[in-house]
Amino acid sequence: MSSGTNQTIVKGIVPPMVTPLLSDNLSLDVESVHRLLEHLIAGGVHGVFILGTTGESTSLSYRTRELLINETCRIVNGRIPVFVGITDTSIEESLHLADVAYRAGATAVVAAPPFYYGLGQEELYKYYWALASQLPLPLFLYNMPSHTKVNIDRGTVIRLAEHPNIIGLKDSSANTVYYQSLCYVLKDKEDFSLLVGPEEITSETILMGGSGGVNGGANMFPKLYVELYNATIARDFDRIRVLQNLVMDVATKIYTIGSYGSSYLKGLKSALSVLGLIQPYIAPPFNTFEEKEMTQVVESVNRIKAEIDNLL
Amino acid sequence: MSSGTNQTIVKGIVPPMVTPLLSDNLSLDVESVHRLLEHLIAGGVHGVFILGTTGESTSLSYRTRELLINETCRIVNGRIPVFVGITDTSIEESLHLADVAYRAGATAVVAAPPFYYGLGQEELYKYYWALASQLPLPLFLYNMPSHTKVNIDRGTVIRLAEHPNIIGLKDSSANTVYYQSLCYVLKDKEDFSLLVGPEEITSETILMGGSGGVNGGANMFPKLYVELYNATIARDFDRIRVLQNLVMDVATKIYTIGSYGSSYLKGLKSALSVLGLIQPYIAPPFNTFEEKEMTQVVESVNRIKAEIDNLL
Amino acid sequence: MSSGTNQTIVKGIVPPMVTPLLSDNLSLDVESVHRLLEHLIAGGVHGVFILGTTGESTSLSYRTRELLINETCRIVNGRIPVFVGITDTSIEESLHLADVAYRAGATAVVAAPPFYYGLGQEELYKYYWALASQLPLPLFLYNMPSHTKVNIDRGTVIRLAEHPNIIGLKDSSANTVYYQSLCYVLKDKEDFSLLVGPEEITSETILMGGSGGVNGGANMFPKLYVELYNATIARDFDRIRVLQNLVMDVATKIYTIGSYGSSYLKGLKSALSVLGLIQPYIAPPFNTFEEKEMTQVVESVNRIKAEIDNLL
Amino acid sequence: MSSGTNQTIVKGIVPPMVTPLLSDNLSLDVESVHRLLEHLIAGGVHGVFILGTTGESTSLSYRTRELLINETCRIVNGRIPVFVGITDTSIEESLHLADVAYRAGATAVVAAPPFYYGLGQEELYKYYWALASQLPLPLFLYNMPSHTKVNIDRGTVIRLAEHPNIIGLKDSSANTVYYQSLCYVLKDKEDFSLLVGPEEITSETILMGGSGGVNGGANMFPKLYVELYNATIARDFDRIRVLQNLVMDVATKIYTIGSYGSSYLKGLKSALSVLGLIQPYIAPPFNTFEEKEMTQVVESVNRIKAEIDNLL
Repeated sequence: MSSGTNQTIVKGIVPPMVTPLLSDNLSLDVESVHRLLEHLIAGGVHGVFILGTTGESTSLSYRTRELLINETCRIVNGRIPVFVGITDTSIEESLHLADVAYRAGATAVVAAPPFYYGLGQEELYKYYWALASQLPLPLFLYNMPSHTKVNIDRGTVIRLAEHPNIIGLKDSSANTVYYQSLCYVLKDKEDFSLLVGPEEITSETILMGGSGGVNGGANMFPKLYVELYNATIARDFDRIRVLQNLVMDVATKIYTIGSYGSSYLKGLKSALSVLGLIQPYIAPPFNTFEEKEMTQVVESVNRIKAEIDNLL
Repeated sequence: MSSGTNQTIVKGIVPPMVTPLLSDNLSLDVESVHRLLEHLIAGGVHGVFILGTTGESTSLSYRTRELLINETCRIVNGRIPVFVGITDTSIEESLHLADVAYRAGATAVVAAPPFYYGLGQEELYKYYWALASQLPLPLFLYNMPSHTKVNIDRGTVIRLAEHPNIIGLKDSSANTVYYQSLCYVLKDKEDFSLLVGPEEITSETILMGGSGGVNGGANMFPKLYVELYNATIARDFDRIRVLQNLVMDVATKIYTIGSYGSSYLKGLKSALSVLGLIQPYIAPPFNTFEEKEMTQVVESVNRIKAEIDNLL
Repeated sequence: MSSGTNQTIVKGIVPPMVTPLLSDNLSLDVESVHRLLEHLIAGGVHGVFILGTTGESTSLSYRTRELLINETCRIVNGRIPVFVGITDTSIEESLHLADVAYRAGATAVVAAPPFYYGLGQEELYKYYWALASQLPLPLFLYNMPSHTKVNIDRGTVIRLAEHPNIIGLKDSSANTVYYQSLCYVLKDKEDFSLLVGPEEITSETILMGGSGGVNGGANMFPKLYVELYNATIARDFDRIRVLQNLVMDVATKIYTIGSYGSSYLKGLKSALSVLGLIQPYIAPPFNTFEEKEMTQVVESVNRIKAEIDNLL
Repeated sequence: MSSGTNQTIVKGIVPPMVTPLLSDNLSLDVESVHRLLEHLIAGGVHGVFILGTTGESTSLSYRTRELLINETCRIVNGRIPVFVGITDTSIEESLHLADVAYRAGATAVVAAPPFYYGLGQEELYKYYWALASQLPLPLFLYNMPSHTKVNIDRGTVIRLAEHPNIIGLKDSSANTVYYQSLCYVLKDKEDFSLLVGPEEITSETILMGGSGGVNGGANMFPKLYVELYNATIARDFDRIRVLQNLVMDVATKIYTIGSYGSSYLKGLKSALSVLGLIQPYIAPPFNTFEEKEMTQVVESVNRIKAEIDNLL
């Protein structure tokens, strides 16, 4: 088990990195992984989270996941913390991925609840406690009820926060009543980080006591999100307003094209290809945008990029 | 149709008033209505909202709803704005309640979507447009997806905001990604108010551009919520932290007793009876707390009240 | 409280009658009520259920509901049992409607759970027990989880079946695992009727022990559903197959036009207008079909009617 | 791609086999696999389905899944058809499992939708079409909306049934309106099998045109389910009633112990251990029953077994 968890307090912007693919045959695009990581580090991010929901972890083969872990840790080479998603329905596979992450030198692992069966809170508690007790790295809980069908309820988080190897929670529920209640009940637990997923609410949650944001848009424009984080810490509301408007512009113009829940992922990967950072390929069960949607993405990305370049 | 909707911009704390009942026979406790309204006005609230979810509107007979509208307007007598819930599955009954409200001198009406059938967004849009066009008072939309089974999606709100008689939205979804996106797309529409339901997130939403809070806890401690509003407007973060902690104390200690979704309503009415403001009766399908839960309420209310009295 | 509940065992086809409206101003079309009731009785139905989900009960004013109860009982005049929906969020209004039904000579009342607040099973149990104890007529439980957000769980039904005034359950969940488990646990309770809503599964549930069907399509073609009931009772599988195919034709060709959950109701009322039985008006929050959809309805209804006329 | 799909029409009882585990370390209990398969074959089942929801597929490592496929095919040795679950969030892993199944001599594969992201119907269609086109064995669709968050809608099934490599659907939705509508629209497609999951409704769906049941209880009492199938085919209603009551006894007494959605799986594995067929171990995120629940299982299993032995 990990010692020195106090070294892993996480604050700031930690992009959930997309997984660049070479083509529809699903091979990892290692060159783009390199390019994207350098882009993020140059943008000042405080860490990187691979193999999350934005990283299409569950759509990738284990071979590809392992390759991505190893390449990422090699390229980052200690410059920023690396968080590795190990979410899986099989605890054995989660532990195996964690072992790969540990050997590659990752900072910590992140796990959403097993997501096939519906779980009760007591089952969730026992699962996480057992997982954390076997992990070679510190663990972040990952609350993602829309995908896992279960919320990690406040009472369960409080109990799990007692585990010495559980160091934080990333909440992607978009429910800030829940988030505020976690900030409140954990306010004296200084070594427990509370990160938020949706970039639309990163600023407001940090104002109220949150630790930072795991924001997909930071793949495209890392500086924008880092600057919003800095303005928020400084309580510079004039600047917050300007930057938040740009963040909302990204969310409402790039993530909402097309008609499915997958429009966020498709929009993000398409936009990253427009920016020359990756190729637009996406793993099944999804498909890359067709030309019509792509045209919309190009227009939005170029306009927003110009505004950001102007400002920052 | 109303003219002068610019006079009805709503900002601040507008408690969703509970409906005091005389006993389990469901008669309105007019004396307690009087006492509670004076308590709220003395506490500095910026308006009062009757016949909402907290007001058990849908559990009351129409006779009782009409009596409450008339008594409230009579007692308030123009000292603060009065908002009247007209949520109903029958548009005829909604219009009738609105007529009662208009004749009694209320400020505006508030309507959640019809909540028996599941509605599509286009159906929702047509319903609200037709309703607003027939109302004698300005209309607040009321987003309450957990109870109505439908979210008033951002695109639908944008379209409805074009109606001259629709002046705002109260959002009780607890989803601040949605709320932020409304603040963003409506930011140039100055005569449209965005109020938030859950008191845990009133401060953070106002910091990001929201108009105020429709907070149940303000029935008990109106000054606490008004002071939090003032501290938020002033961006006095030291004071926000202290007051927010008290608000979270109310939410986590008074609203979470018992095992059902009804614990908020039961806790609130019980606490108000402990404070001597109303009797603890609640309308079917709910029942008043039993002695065991009541003991918990008494302990929490007295402790929190002492802390608030100490501070404010 | 009712005596002689053993006289109210319900078996067979009990159409949930649509509520004919005169125009979009929502007045009851009493002439069409008369025509429709005579059509149903001539078709051999075993009872009629007014003010259900198909009857748009919750969309109608109380004045209209009362008028419909009185007119229906007057027209039926004891020829078939009349069941009256009293579903409401206010127990006072439910009791009032039950009183109107009792005075008009109705056979029994039907109530789905109060549907605004989410209820727990214990709350549901207490609500129904209290309601049944105050009713002047026997009560049918009405399970409609898609609309009421709560399932009346098996254990709750078992407890409620002990009440002398609760005489059956209409299940519209479409979940036959649930339905089978009710048939099983209540198999020795001969005075408790188990009716099923969706007409697609009336035959199969009766084969396994169910009492009958509350089938919307019987508004259009009462003989079809009555004949399917008779064939099912007789276990005449050749005839079941032919009739079931026609029932499925109705369900897949008339109820699925348009893109919302409301397509059942819109399709049914439109088809009834094509058959000359009612006018096509529907109460808000819904709207009558536009011409394009209406053309589809006309084509389907005429073709299916010809097939039925040919066969029966 | 498979030829001769007409050889794979599936009718009858195909138990979804539990996966026997050696202990909480999750190793496959090969000896119990052998014992259980012989028990099933001796009971007359028409096929066996491994690595389904009952088989805890998603909780097992890939190594264990591969071992189970190979062992099962080796032991069965062509005596009955073997269906192999390849449900996965990664299409590459699904294809790999299908390849293992093909080389081991399995009959067909079964896949539920990818279950992490929420999918739209068009996405689902494209996914399944692409999957079926790459598979070395015929494919059964597996509808399991409670676990996958998406229903394979009727229109999507109709389109997918056109694929020469898609030979049937197993429906575990418990929604027989959906099931009936599939029977209806596919009634002329004789080479497409419609199997049902929940054992409570196997008989009624077969009466109306279904092909058979994938019934968990057949792990324990294969003869009971096979006899119910035979009685249903013979339309012997006296025997159906007796056997169905036993099936309901299993469902209501063995699958409902404890308080979570997992009670089915825990009850079934516990009961199989009482019968001496497997050990009671269950994979995370679940845990084996504690002594108290185990006592209830022992009592129920012994009583039901005695009744079945008496009858069959």
